[in-house]
Amino acid sequence: MITAVSPLAPTQVPDMPAIAGVRLSTAAAGIRYAGRTDVLLALFTPGTTAAGVFTRSKCPSAPVEWCRARLKFGKSKGNLARALVVNSGNANAFTGKSGRVATKLTAELAAKAAGCKADEIFLASTGVIGEPLDAGKFATVMDGLVAGAKPSNFLAAAQAIMTTDTFPKVATATARIGKAAVTINGIAKGAGMIAPDMATMLSFVFTDAAIAAPALQALLREHVADTFNAVTVDGDTSTSDTLMLFATGKAANVPRIARAGDPRLKAFNKALHAVLANLSEQIARDGEGARKLVEIVVEGAVSKASARRIALSIANSPLVKTAIAGEDANWGRVVMAVGKAGEPADRDKLSIWFGGIRVAHQGARDPGYDEAEVSALMKNPVIHLKVALGLGKGRDRVLTCDLTKEYVAINGDYRS
Amino acid sequence: MITAVSPLAPTQVPDMPAIAGVRLSTAAAGIRYAGRTDVLLALFTPGTTAAGVFTRSKCPSAPVEWCRARLKFGKSKGNLARALVVNSGNANAFTGKSGRVATKLTAELAAKAAGCKADEIFLASTGVIGEPLDAGKFATVMDGLVAGAKPSNFLAAAQAIMTTDTFPKVATATARIGKAAVTINGIAKGAGMIAPDMATMLSFVFTDAAIAAPALQALLREHVADTFNAVTVDGDTSTSDTLMLFATGKAANVPRIARAGDPRLKAFNKALHAVLANLSEQIARDGEGARKLVEIVVEGAVSKASARRIALSIANSPLVKTAIAGEDANWGRVVMAVGKAGEPADRDKLSIWFGGIRVAHQGARDPGYDEAEVSALMKNPVIHLKVALGLGKGRDRVLTCDLTKEYVAINGDYRS
Repeated sequence: MITAVSPLAPTQVPDMPAIAGVRLSTAAAGIRYAGRTDVLLALFTPGTTAAGVFTRSKCPSAPVEWCRARLKFGKSKGNLARALVVNSGNANAFTGKSGRVATKLTAELAAKAAGCKADEIFLASTGVIGEPLDAGKFATVMDGLVAGAKPSNFLAAAQAIMTTDTFPKVATATARIGKAAVTINGIAKGAGMIAPDMATMLSFVFTDAAIAAPALQALLREHVADTFNAVTVDGDTSTSDTLMLFATGKAANVPRIARAGDPRLKAFNKALHAVLANLSEQIARDGEGARKLVEIVVEGAVSKASARRIALSIANSPLVKTAIAGEDANWGRVVMAVGKAGEPADRDKLSIWFGGIRVAHQGARDPGYDEAEVSALMKNPVIHLKVALGLGKGRDRVLTCDLTKEYVAINGDYRS
Repeated sequence: MITAVSPLAPTQVPDMPAIAGVRLSTAAAGIRYAGRTDVLLALFTPGTTAAGVFTRSKCPSAPVEWCRARLKFGKSKGNLARALVVNSGNANAFTGKSGRVATKLTAELAAKAAGCKADEIFLASTGVIGEPLDAGKFATVMDGLVAGAKPSNFLAAAQAIMTTDTFPKVATATARIGKAAVTINGIAKGAGMIAPDMATMLSFVFTDAAIAAPALQALLREHVADTFNAVTVDGDTSTSDTLMLFATGKAANVPRIARAGDPRLKAFNKALHAVLANLSEQIARDGEGARKLVEIVVEGAVSKASARRIALSIANSPLVKTAIAGEDANWGRVVMAVGKAGEPADRDKLSIWFGGIRVAHQGARDPGYDEAEVSALMKNPVIHLKVALGLGKGRDRVLTCDLTKEYVAINGDYRS
């Protein structure tokens, strides 16, 4: 296994402040790993609201189905959450009936220890697919987890949910709602699909704002579109992807917000977006084997949705990604990826930039193309790629990473 | 560059018989390569009908646009072809106006040398994208090509159109139409996207049957669906993919066929399908860096189209492909790829086989799963993967290859 920290890892890790109404605890339950924590418990003050977005996979994991059912259950009374239990090492996916039994048992254990209902417990699991998850492992650590819960364990929480991420991912921001100061903290683990069977992105975001569940859900949906949903590593979608947002309402003098469109949320919206953007960028920076972070901007498309599809076609193209790994400004492959996206495009209006340098213009190589100049730029750790279609005003941006031999080694050599 | 012949190459190359009404010739025009042939000229007897299917890219190459326009032009009189000119080394793609000028000039040169109209010339190019193609190179070799054309140069023809294919691809079959014996010969070059900028599949098929152009087009469309369109290497689509079928009508005593549904075509249909299936399988066998040929069968889907989309989702998944490269029967990734396809699927009805061994059944690992047994099977050069969805009668099959470090090396290390 490759365990060196990604060269694209952030150089500074922020101090993570406490969030009023959230306590965290981690434990080593020995689910798969030895000598490290693998369970996270987050306890929430009564009245905490919850929102979640999940994988679109048709074969979701048992915890994803559990959370979806709880969010529905709670709709009438506002998706209340008292605890979150996350484990690494086993995804509890494709585990059939035993998977459903394990989620129920885990929730009941946590509810008993936390003094709430099982329906107020949210769950997430990441790790091997198809191995039964022994919920009994949680029984041995649950009381200790509750007893040891503390307000400011966010970095430890991020560490407990790692699979083969090369660094823990945390982000924080503050904002004002009316006159009250609120904090937003987030943790995440890699979309890297970094090790065999560990193909999952998990992220949990916590705030002491007071926001009704339907509004919280609307905010999460809005801000995920251009953050987590605009990041791709290899186009593969986990059975377990989970992003949840919890709001405790415990910030001092914070007003209760009922609607996502409330104008008092202006600064909060910005801060929430920043936290989600930061975490999702960290996921691209920890893509398996990644040596380059790649930003792809598509403009001049017929719509934003069309720009997104073209940007993802480029971002998921193995030929584009291997070219970037080879530090090759291979714009011909970008043309190919635009062409295969199935979206409106006119070859003779197409222009392409690597960094600030235009390499192709109006359907042909740029007359001023200087390969040495572009090649020098391709040595940078962050590559900016822009495509202008010249058709309309649709613009979008996605992040990805390069495709290296290390990706193949990490994902292919594991058992060989 | 890696030049070793793919370990998946066919062990026997068939003797390619002559096709009455087809003469072939190759030359070294020095378009990009030194010391090898890079131009193919095929001359057809008057009255030869033509059919073609082309890349769906929105940024097609100039020769693709040329051929499409000719097939439209010829519709009223039946898509007549007198010659085909193919070059390797330069794709004449994303070359703007100069690309259109080059195709016209090439067709005029060929028409003059062959004594026909430019509209009866078909063109294909494969190689670097974005470099202007110097049609003057053809001028120096065209008269010699016409003078040297011979009936049975099919292997040499397949060699002249290679880019970094590791072996030439030919196939042949015979059939009876009524009492007449007809022959079908095909040549192809790799979809490997094997070297930078050389992302193209080209294939040309020739027969001495007498089939009207609209019927020929219908036959080609029908048989391409489960052959060339069911093969994927990396999901990337070339700007230049071209498959053409030419029918000279020169077999002895061959009846003229006007309709694709003519019952006399029964054996011909079978033979044409076999030639296209053979050539397209060779392309998967020469996928860049390929060490395993992978057959993916999806059954029990709600429709054949749904089965195709699920099979392609599996075939194009980097995680599935790297697992196979690592000889890892990682069925969890197959679940992931089924789940992300967006097609109807019920996790709890899903079963998966590697080879003949069922590894997952009804939404969980097969109770009889024996990792040693499955791992032994993964060492084979051909891997059969089957998914049963248990929803309906839709079934489909696609071919692909594994994703190895050599793929990344071939596509990424070129300029570094």
